Amino acid sequence: MKVFGIDPGSARTGYGCVETDGSRHRLLVCGAISPPASATFPDKLQFVHRELLKLIRECAPSCVAVENVFHAANVRSALKLGHTRGVALLAASEAGVEVAEYSPAEIKRAVVGYGRAEKVQVQQMVRMLLGLRRAPTPHDVADALAVAICHVHSNDIASRLKRERGAQNGPTTRRAATSWRQLGPADLAALMGRTRG
Amino acid sequence: MKVFGIDPGSARTGYGCVETDGSRHRLLVCGAISPPASATFPDKLQFVHRELLKLIRECAPSCVAVENVFHAANVRSALKLGHTRGVALLAASEAGVEVAEYSPAEIKRAVVGYGRAEKVQVQQMVRMLLGLRRAPTPHDVADALAVAICHVHSNDIASRLKRERGAQNGPTTRRAATSWRQLGPADLAALMGRTRG
Repeated sequence: MKVFGIDPGSARTGYGCVETDGSRHRLLVCGAISPPASATFPDKLQFVHRELLKLIRECAPSCVAVENVFHAANVRSALKLGHTRGVALLAASEAGVEVAEYSPAEIKRAVVGYGRAEKVQVQQMVRMLLGLRRAPTPHDVADALAVAICHVHSNDIASRLKRERGAQNGPTTRRAATSWRQLGPADLAALMGRTRG
Repeated sequence: MKVFGIDPGSARTGYGCVETDGSRHRLLVCGAISPPASATFPDKLQFVHRELLKLIRECAPSCVAVENVFHAANVRSALKLGHTRGVALLAASEAGVEVAEYSPAEIKRAVVGYGRAEKVQVQQMVRMLLGLRRAPTPHDVADALAVAICHVHSNDIASRLKRERGAQNGPTTRRAATSWRQLGPADLAALMGRTRG
């Protein structure tokens, strides 16, 4: 499974594609898109959209994962971020790829194991999980890889729990967890132990 | 000159194209884009983007005019609006058309003559200025036409004042007004009298 993570930003948009076989993750491509500072705002949006669409088509992931934003410094910065996020979601839709959204806390919990982790902890865990020599920089790139890893884990845990519960209890009507929010502490601890082991 | 106005909204995006010969304005096309309610958010963005790009290319305006937003009920609604606004600006950029942005007060002042006019006043003035039998509805369509008319007036007044000042004072280094904000009450009154006469 390939997952393409995006961290849209007003000045710079991080991206990264992660491939996984279920137990190991591998970095395929990552980077940051920085439109020319002299371009008009609509032309900057076009630059980001064109690059993302090209990258998503090249990577052909099964999912595009994006951080869900609920907070911003103010309405103006929320609006500006919304523009870039809009053209990112558009690129995914045009490439015919499903979009999954995760809250910042879900992403940090998936990658670091703690929903209020610092940026530098996320960078270091992304480095370890992908077996990289150096932590990906700038932080937009690490954040894009983090949301991709979060999606991998969410999907992974959902199918794993489904299998395990099916084996223990026979046919069951209980729905498999599709989000970290639905998991208990034991499930989380089990996953975290396995992922980092 | 043809101006294509857009009023982006989370649920519905109004649009309208106005043609002017400098003294009379004519409505070419207007309407509202409502993506299917059942579509995912990225697919709704794709729907709005595709429709706008098609319409802008068909109308071939010299400018796309969009309301500049500074206020929203909260960060979440600002973010959502930003997404739609982002794909609207992208469509203009992809069509190779310049984008002009005006504040809500500038638009109301241009159309009604009063920066804090009510929605229904804007609808009625748009109807009168374009010589329509009925006020355009829903209000998103009237708002899109209002921002297009605002751009026509701004451009119009800028070149008119330049001409008049040039004739009265000979060559001058004073810059022509490019926005209503730069105009005095006399200029505003003169324009309003002429436009509505």
